[in-house]
Amino acid sequence: MKILRANMSKLKILIEDLPEEWKLFGGRRLVAEICNKEINPECYPLGDENKLIITGGALAGYGIPMADRLSVGGKSPLTGGIKESNAGGTVIQSLSKLGICTIIIEGQPSTKDFYILYISKDKTELINASVYKKLGNHELVKEMRKKFNNDVSTISIGPAGEMKMSIAGVFASDTKWHLRPAARGGMGAVMGSKGLKAIVIKNNGTYKPNISNKEEFYSARREFIKKIMNNPETAVRYPKYGTAATLQIKNKIGALPTYNFTRGSFEKADLINGDALFRLIEKRKGVGQHSHACMAGCIIKCGNIIPNKDGNFLSDSLEFETMGMLGANLGISNLDTIANLNYECNNIGIDTIETGAAIGIALSFGIANFGDEKEISKIISKDIRNGTVLGQLLGSGCTLTAQVFKTSRVPAVKGQSINASDPRAHKERAITHSMSTMGADHTFGVTRSPIPPHESNGHMQIARLVHVKMAGYESLGFCQMSLAGIEFELKYPVSLVNAIFNLNKDTEWLLKYGKEVILEERKFNFAAGFTEKDDRIPDFFKKEKLPPFNLVVDVPEKEYKSYWDKSFWENS
Amino acid sequence: MKILRANMSKLKILIEDLPEEWKLFGGRRLVAEICNKEINPECYPLGDENKLIITGGALAGYGIPMADRLSVGGKSPLTGGIKESNAGGTVIQSLSKLGICTIIIEGQPSTKDFYILYISKDKTELINASVYKKLGNHELVKEMRKKFNNDVSTISIGPAGEMKMSIAGVFASDTKWHLRPAARGGMGAVMGSKGLKAIVIKNNGTYKPNISNKEEFYSARREFIKKIMNNPETAVRYPKYGTAATLQIKNKIGALPTYNFTRGSFEKADLINGDALFRLIEKRKGVGQHSHACMAGCIIKCGNIIPNKDGNFLSDSLEFETMGMLGANLGISNLDTIANLNYECNNIGIDTIETGAAIGIALSFGIANFGDEKEISKIISKDIRNGTVLGQLLGSGCTLTAQVFKTSRVPAVKGQSINASDPRAHKERAITHSMSTMGADHTFGVTRSPIPPHESNGHMQIARLVHVKMAGYESLGFCQMSLAGIEFELKYPVSLVNAIFNLNKDTEWLLKYGKEVILEERKFNFAAGFTEKDDRIPDFFKKEKLPPFNLVVDVPEKEYKSYWDKSFWENS
Repeated sequence: MKILRANMSKLKILIEDLPEEWKLFGGRRLVAEICNKEINPECYPLGDENKLIITGGALAGYGIPMADRLSVGGKSPLTGGIKESNAGGTVIQSLSKLGICTIIIEGQPSTKDFYILYISKDKTELINASVYKKLGNHELVKEMRKKFNNDVSTISIGPAGEMKMSIAGVFASDTKWHLRPAARGGMGAVMGSKGLKAIVIKNNGTYKPNISNKEEFYSARREFIKKIMNNPETAVRYPKYGTAATLQIKNKIGALPTYNFTRGSFEKADLINGDALFRLIEKRKGVGQHSHACMAGCIIKCGNIIPNKDGNFLSDSLEFETMGMLGANLGISNLDTIANLNYECNNIGIDTIETGAAIGIALSFGIANFGDEKEISKIISKDIRNGTVLGQLLGSGCTLTAQVFKTSRVPAVKGQSINASDPRAHKERAITHSMSTMGADHTFGVTRSPIPPHESNGHMQIARLVHVKMAGYESLGFCQMSLAGIEFELKYPVSLVNAIFNLNKDTEWLLKYGKEVILEERKFNFAAGFTEKDDRIPDFFKKEKLPPFNLVVDVPEKEYKSYWDKSFWENS
Repeated sequence: MKILRANMSKLKILIEDLPEEWKLFGGRRLVAEICNKEINPECYPLGDENKLIITGGALAGYGIPMADRLSVGGKSPLTGGIKESNAGGTVIQSLSKLGICTIIIEGQPSTKDFYILYISKDKTELINASVYKKLGNHELVKEMRKKFNNDVSTISIGPAGEMKMSIAGVFASDTKWHLRPAARGGMGAVMGSKGLKAIVIKNNGTYKPNISNKEEFYSARREFIKKIMNNPETAVRYPKYGTAATLQIKNKIGALPTYNFTRGSFEKADLINGDALFRLIEKRKGVGQHSHACMAGCIIKCGNIIPNKDGNFLSDSLEFETMGMLGANLGISNLDTIANLNYECNNIGIDTIETGAAIGIALSFGIANFGDEKEISKIISKDIRNGTVLGQLLGSGCTLTAQVFKTSRVPAVKGQSINASDPRAHKERAITHSMSTMGADHTFGVTRSPIPPHESNGHMQIARLVHVKMAGYESLGFCQMSLAGIEFELKYPVSLVNAIFNLNKDTEWLLKYGKEVILEERKFNFAAGFTEKDDRIPDFFKKEKLPPFNLVVDVPEKEYKSYWDKSFWENS
């Protein structure tokens, strides 16, 4: 497999071989490796020293269901630390067929021009794209499909990325033309700072990577699929409800961020939960869809497509985090409005989680009223899209927004906002949010812990093990959903690795690998200026009681402290 | 002498004795002591854990000219580190007569009410001041003088302090009713966060501190005065031109921040230099004044009062830093406009330096044009005064403004903007700006170095010695001007200390004392999260050439590094 390097200072493209020692590296592991090897951890994230790393996982391109996840990484302008943000879509499948596993974007143009990096079997080039400036992602994808004859996968940024907003994500196209966001950490701003509007990958490759032991491989793949199809969560619940299923649970336990994290239950949650979304799609039909696969071969299909009242397209897949952060957290109970905000965010190219957190703070400051759908829509589609002063401020994320509006109620860790899971009522998340090497987030790995969510003790060890499993598993290119599907049993992915690479690894190997991922990420962060003190939840979660259960984060300090015990991390 | 503590959570006042071991502590030294002893360095600066410390120097109240400087300190909301900001005015003279050397404001009211702390011989109380909310400092001082029968000294905040803006200062009244700002580091926001609108001190005290050896004291005082009166800088230049004299020099060497630090000389500098200011006052007369003393007994009188065209009051003392940062740095060449902006800043209660730096960044972003006096006036008197989103943003200082507007050109160190002295053309300032324990600033101590300003080498040792002298000298309560007046010869203040306290110290003692001040400040900063890496000038000063001399900061790294050599700091 090859690495493609595009130098945006010189507007030159280089192709090089993937080093043999990186053969089993992909996703978070490869991002961490390249960050530590090639990026000055103290550099300005939007300057020419940072790099944008785009890569699949170690098992990408082999035709394994849900293993072709796209990773986008580099130094985050939101957190100042390492970032790997991942998404579904067809990009990695198209790229693998061209024999390319990784794209590294370097340097920075000296002009304000924007470019498209076009990659196909026949030609790879940088095309001046200044004519597409300010186009939304949807608008751009439409143009790209027209220009390149439909059969392309795209990675792009919207106006927010062009304006280098820290809430800007990178957006990948899926099996149709819908968008899948690698939303968090401001990787869209890094892409914008490189003068790169889009990467367009022609789906005309024919490369097939070698599989050492084919029979063993097909057998391992069958077992993997069987396991997932026998799990009611991944076989029934997610295809039907998508991630939206989570909303009702969070609301019930009082962990759904509501009215800028001042409540944990939303009185109108019934109007925006998974069931309501399911019924809306069922009723309206049209282009509406449950079980929408974001990449070919997916067997979980947790995505959806939201139709408007006339059955026409309203929004790309609506996820729980969006429904929580742009819904309950802003006091909005209208699914149409939330779906439209989701569309706008995808089009403008911003992270719905960070956007919801930042707007929540602005609403508490009186910028508009909670639940004022019209004003909130305007804030997103006018202020953020056009980069007014308010838009630029919110576009800088919830931490800066809170600093400017002078509140210590910042629902963020390491500069990144918490997702739709208040750690006061879901206490395992206090550990996950705190310890994440990328700022508060569910994507660091979430447990299906047997410990009740309101219980203060005992979460650390369970959470830590899942974080490690997740780090290893994701680096292979798999989506998080499928890890739940195989019930966190690592023998499934390890069998696939063994068959492909003719190895004889055990599950301990993947655990050790996962630890290595996290330690490498942490190494970058420490070199960038982070310390152990950054691994803590904000004070207000410890002091301000969260209704309706009036809970605070009271996870014992020793649980945080022992997280980094050498006996765990150095044990292989 | 007594310490007055006002607890704003309980609305209670306590009087306690100044501990014997703090007898020689005052100003920066006492602020550092109280910060390290009583403030959690990791606390939220605008929360109830921070304290606002108001104190004179160790020699305050003894009738020594220029030794009654007011210090205002605590943890800075602008930098996150320690802050001591000082000002002239009559506050410390009035307070000393009441036998009070220090006021410590603690806690935070649970309501949004504001209070006045009224202190007199007969009565000390907290008065609800919510009726004065949103008044400017000038407006408030007028009210206070009316309410308390004129003979009062005041310390107050304007609307910016109430809104807890990081650019908000604390303003003291002078010998008349004009204002002297303790402007930098956001101490006005800390005062606002305590719900304290003003401290009003009735000038009815009769306390006279003990002088051990009176004859020796009067002789030492005579020598001190004689030295200053024989120095042409303090005897002639400052009384005539004030600090404005500096502008021409800075402009000539190309170190005057112009158009948001993109040039070092302003083509219209002649219109706003010390001479122009002198002529304006001379011509208009009316209330206009050179040689305005901010405190009784001052023999330098570097202050001025600016008359408008009709001879009526236009502005409090106009200083070089203001003329540089609100003039050249914003492309404004109209002295009337600059004086009016100065008045507005004092009235709103903000630091003219940080304001000029933040607006400079906003102008580069296109918020208004450089030199557009009308728009820039509106930004200050409308946006900042009323706290619009733009106002709140600029009110957060230049570092946050730059972060939101996505530029790495941040003319700040440790979160505080550089004053009107570009380190690229005045290279000694690269050391001073970098090493300051309080963020970039001239008040850390400026040399009259024989090394040419464009020379890259050799500044460190000279600068460091002045920083140390300054730290010790200021802690005694003296103003910076007088240190220039005595040509940095510490025997003058040491003689005064010996006479008053019946001691036998030498100048080495004051040097050691000065080192202790800086080390204590640094200790607080490190506990707050700073590291040695924060002692550096921003990268852009090293890379971007400054016209007209096309200079960059190229002070050798070893000069920064050796600044903290133990052999210097531990040597007593």
